[in-house]
Amino acid sequence: MTDVNIMTGGPHENLSDDWQQLAGEWIGVDRGTLRLVKAGIKPILAVGDFDSLTASEFQLVREHVQKIEQVPSAKDDTDTELAVKAALTDFSADKVTLVGATGGRLDHFLSNLFLPLQPRFLDDIERIHLLDEQNHVDYYGPGTHEIQPLPGYRYVAVINLTPVTDLAIVGAKYPLKPWSAAYPYAWASNEFIGNEPFTVSWTTGQVAIIYSRDRIGQKVDN
Amino acid sequence: MTDVNIMTGGPHENLSDDWQQLAGEWIGVDRGTLRLVKAGIKPILAVGDFDSLTASEFQLVREHVQKIEQVPSAKDDTDTELAVKAALTDFSADKVTLVGATGGRLDHFLSNLFLPLQPRFLDDIERIHLLDEQNHVDYYGPGTHEIQPLPGYRYVAVINLTPVTDLAIVGAKYPLKPWSAAYPYAWASNEFIGNEPFTVSWTTGQVAIIYSRDRIGQKVDN
Repeated sequence: MTDVNIMTGGPHENLSDDWQQLAGEWIGVDRGTLRLVKAGIKPILAVGDFDSLTASEFQLVREHVQKIEQVPSAKDDTDTELAVKAALTDFSADKVTLVGATGGRLDHFLSNLFLPLQPRFLDDIERIHLLDEQNHVDYYGPGTHEIQPLPGYRYVAVINLTPVTDLAIVGAKYPLKPWSAAYPYAWASNEFIGNEPFTVSWTTGQVAIIYSRDRIGQKVDN
Repeated sequence: MTDVNIMTGGPHENLSDDWQQLAGEWIGVDRGTLRLVKAGIKPILAVGDFDSLTASEFQLVREHVQKIEQVPSAKDDTDTELAVKAALTDFSADKVTLVGATGGRLDHFLSNLFLPLQPRFLDDIERIHLLDEQNHVDYYGPGTHEIQPLPGYRYVAVINLTPVTDLAIVGAKYPLKPWSAAYPYAWASNEFIGNEPFTVSWTTGQVAIIYSRDRIGQKVDN
């Protein structure tokens, strides 16, 4: 049992500054693998068609990656889906963190954001996370959850990504009485009261808890 | 009847290079208003609490904006929701384009992305669009829609943002047989065949069509 981080190919600027310090093993998704290798990381697995790599780049990847799963570009599963499957199944990861999954093309980002909602991943939804420079995303299924503050993140949002029943927030700056909707909605810009956790509950649907912060060094214009 | 563009407060880097050339009037959302005024644009309306503006910045806004709707920061509607309501109702906009709505905090972005799905906006969903440097988002309700190529955008994605019934794609590079799901999913990285439109249809739910492109000047690493 271990933590597995998955590096996908989103823009550099969106990576959290300390991504190289994440605990656990790494899986590289296509070109994301090259980013890992160049950072001196030896991924336990790389998945992709690697079409965009030059011969010498692919050689570099081959020298530093324990196992390479080369797949065609047109297939049923995306590279990232294959990587998450491997992390959960082959490597029995307790915690899977998607890195490089935001910024740039919105279709790529939404494919990553919605991935844990697929029926095949629902049992493991709370094991999957997404991390970038300004955001930390956790996923939860129905139930009652205690949400803890996360150092360095001022804001916390409760976002139902699917229809939801009786979503309630108790003990946060902005509480929410039981609320149901057939559409996704972002209860954004909430905050913790002091350093106290709050409780969020619902009976059907999947919800993302997104911790976020303004940019480090940001002056005013955002 | 006119086009109305709404400038929200997302990071500069995510703005499309030619945003200042968009046809139509402008509404500024909170600090986004300052960006408009500094670009020499005179917004027809500005909405926000303007707490983050200095006295001289707010003075500049007051000098260049026809109407300012100053609202408290904690309220039922977000500033962007108020701006979209005004665009559709007060200004009878045919087309409302959200600009500055991506990048940075994911709770802000998802609040913008999901806005057109709210029951009060559903009748006007096809009038609302979202534009950034790499993406152009259109929204559609149930029915059969002919999707036209958009010059400069290589990729097109079909993304059900709500549960969907019998979603089918005919005439694109990757067709889809009628498919239903209780969760959102991104059918990403599709392409037009030559310069031909394709057809997409479904019977219940809301779908985003996202045109996207790699970054201008992008070399290889994405």
